[in-house]
Amino acid sequence: MTELIDPDEALRLVIQRTPEPRGVELDLVAGLGRTLVRPVVASSDQPPFGKAMMDGYAVCVCDAGGQARVVAEVAAGHSTQAAVAPGEVLAIMTGAPCPSGTEAVVKVEDTRRHGDQVTLPELMVPGQHLQPQGGFCKAGDEIIPAGATLTSVSMAVIASMGQATVWVARAPSVAVITTGDELAPPGSHLGEARIYDSNGPMLMSQARLAGAGELTRLHARDTPESLARALAQVETADIVVLTGGVSMGRYDLVPGAIRDAGGEQVFHKVRQKPGKPIFFAVRGSQLLFGLPGTPLGSHLGFHRYVAAAMAKLHGRDPRRELRRGELTGPLELHGRRTLFRLARARREGGRWLVDPLSWRGSSDLCGPSLSNCYLRFGAGSTALRPGDSIDLELIDGLDYR
Amino acid sequence: MTELIDPDEALRLVIQRTPEPRGVELDLVAGLGRTLVRPVVASSDQPPFGKAMMDGYAVCVCDAGGQARVVAEVAAGHSTQAAVAPGEVLAIMTGAPCPSGTEAVVKVEDTRRHGDQVTLPELMVPGQHLQPQGGFCKAGDEIIPAGATLTSVSMAVIASMGQATVWVARAPSVAVITTGDELAPPGSHLGEARIYDSNGPMLMSQARLAGAGELTRLHARDTPESLARALAQVETADIVVLTGGVSMGRYDLVPGAIRDAGGEQVFHKVRQKPGKPIFFAVRGSQLLFGLPGTPLGSHLGFHRYVAAAMAKLHGRDPRRELRRGELTGPLELHGRRTLFRLARARREGGRWLVDPLSWRGSSDLCGPSLSNCYLRFGAGSTALRPGDSIDLELIDGLDYR
Repeated sequence: MTELIDPDEALRLVIQRTPEPRGVELDLVAGLGRTLVRPVVASSDQPPFGKAMMDGYAVCVCDAGGQARVVAEVAAGHSTQAAVAPGEVLAIMTGAPCPSGTEAVVKVEDTRRHGDQVTLPELMVPGQHLQPQGGFCKAGDEIIPAGATLTSVSMAVIASMGQATVWVARAPSVAVITTGDELAPPGSHLGEARIYDSNGPMLMSQARLAGAGELTRLHARDTPESLARALAQVETADIVVLTGGVSMGRYDLVPGAIRDAGGEQVFHKVRQKPGKPIFFAVRGSQLLFGLPGTPLGSHLGFHRYVAAAMAKLHGRDPRRELRRGELTGPLELHGRRTLFRLARARREGGRWLVDPLSWRGSSDLCGPSLSNCYLRFGAGSTALRPGDSIDLELIDGLDYR
Repeated sequence: MTELIDPDEALRLVIQRTPEPRGVELDLVAGLGRTLVRPVVASSDQPPFGKAMMDGYAVCVCDAGGQARVVAEVAAGHSTQAAVAPGEVLAIMTGAPCPSGTEAVVKVEDTRRHGDQVTLPELMVPGQHLQPQGGFCKAGDEIIPAGATLTSVSMAVIASMGQATVWVARAPSVAVITTGDELAPPGSHLGEARIYDSNGPMLMSQARLAGAGELTRLHARDTPESLARALAQVETADIVVLTGGVSMGRYDLVPGAIRDAGGEQVFHKVRQKPGKPIFFAVRGSQLLFGLPGTPLGSHLGFHRYVAAAMAKLHGRDPRRELRRGELTGPLELHGRRTLFRLARARREGGRWLVDPLSWRGSSDLCGPSLSNCYLRFGAGSTALRPGDSIDLELIDGLDYR
């Protein structure tokens, strides 16, 4: 099964073979930005007790227009045994619990006080300036459904009910394995034949932005033994991303090494540019991606396929929502495969402007150094002019919201 | 200076009093998502050596249509002392450095090999299938300007030049101080008069999403001594966020405590709802925000003012770009202050749909539990119908991109 498949078919296969999300219970704030796998249910009435909304007095409405005695005072964070009764009121602060017998709260500005006596206004409506117990929600109500993303507001809602943990989709663990004898780590001395490893930092960044949990980084040499050792080390990762060694050349050992390690091949080549050679396999519930060694092929492979699998494992919709933008310059291209091209999108006056960037092959990182989105073009010829409309996919996970 | 000021004037003052970003040198991948304060300059030519783009032979073009002897072989990651000369070629793999004398690379498919002899094609163009040294950029070229956000693509660009660190804006350190005697931590037993602390987890989440560096969490009781102790503990934080105790009531000790600790008041009240009482002061280069105790007032205060200060410290534009959305339900409101209302925005078919949510006062978190954006309305009356256009601000820092 090494025939070329369509990029949409490849994406469909990746999503189909990705397991459903698994739940994990986390401390509340650790769940920020994650997807709920169990709904949040109110554990108590909100507010948990009737509460004064103004500084003033807790009263019976039968005392309207008359005088009453101030029998006690209650501040926020305190309660009292004293009760409101006809002719007897309590001074109360905003946020304090209404004492038993409270029918309404009157604002201090609407009263006159002499010693322990207070003159009350003519009009006092039952329930005024107080928030009754359970007025926002009742114990047992579903407050946030499963599938929702936890925001800063969710944190407040959940915390206000005293819940210290949430059940969210477990963040997938990811292992990044660079391959090849020609790679040197940044900062090291570079021999004539070697290049600095750029795919490693790039893929680690993409994995982080896609929400990787545990993140492992390995390098394997271009030998079957080194690759086998690396694959054995990452047996428990949800996702393994290899880069390089995935074409049909003599040194392209990755597909064989994955098969030898028990990986079942799903596809090997995708009718896309860049990044035609891309190997996808499964091993139990583990997903293995063999991405091309060229930086731009590798970047697209992660953006398009690995990130979709991670989105599904996170309980998110793995299909990206496209943005509509407007080209600022001409763009002419043609090819026999679906073409993905990095570009720069800028928001201006409420719309997206898209600057095309120069393209000098899938090894050139200088041309797209300011890019933040992908454009997509069908096979054949495309000639676009400034002002033309175009769909864009933001990189770095910004589209999965 | 306790008069009410306009929300836009308040924002202007916050931005004006926020210091310029300070630079810090970080390991490359730690700089992901951060703003460059020094441009990235190419430290070497890219590619650093002439490179074969195909598997085939490195040749002199004068041998076109003839035969040549294969004198050596060179793979990616290796170099050779052997040189190309008229009548002498090297077998070469994709990515391998072109040996000295190489004028072009021919694809293996375009040749025929017999022993150490190879027949070359009729047409060989100088430079074909090879990437010359410096073809993407030259040493000294500015690759990414100061002010740019570092993406996963930036990581690859910078790593490919062997640079192991970047100079980015230092992430502001933030201290969150909740105040009030009525707050209980989640999971604890709740006495009748107490409420669970929801502002703490909420503000910690907002601070994290706005890119806080060191993040400190304290609680102070409603006494001048406890507040003074807390403020003394956070003297080195870039930003201090207090919540509660900021109105004009007897227990509202925060403005006085900030002044006593050396804070210079900039403003105290903003003509907005929710969150009218909001105290902003500076102490040296430190910014201090006294936010209201109500969760929604506090959330808006962080969203609108603290996040803007953090954006500026991060070297980003502190003014949010609004999104244009379409209301899905009616919305009627009126008031004497600028009104900010949480709502739920959903992307569908390339546009934003905005669901209005119920509003039962700034203590109600159940109504806006699914919200993810703010709507803004001027003072006076507003009556909007389904289908009407409306501007929205996404919460949780999504608008500062």
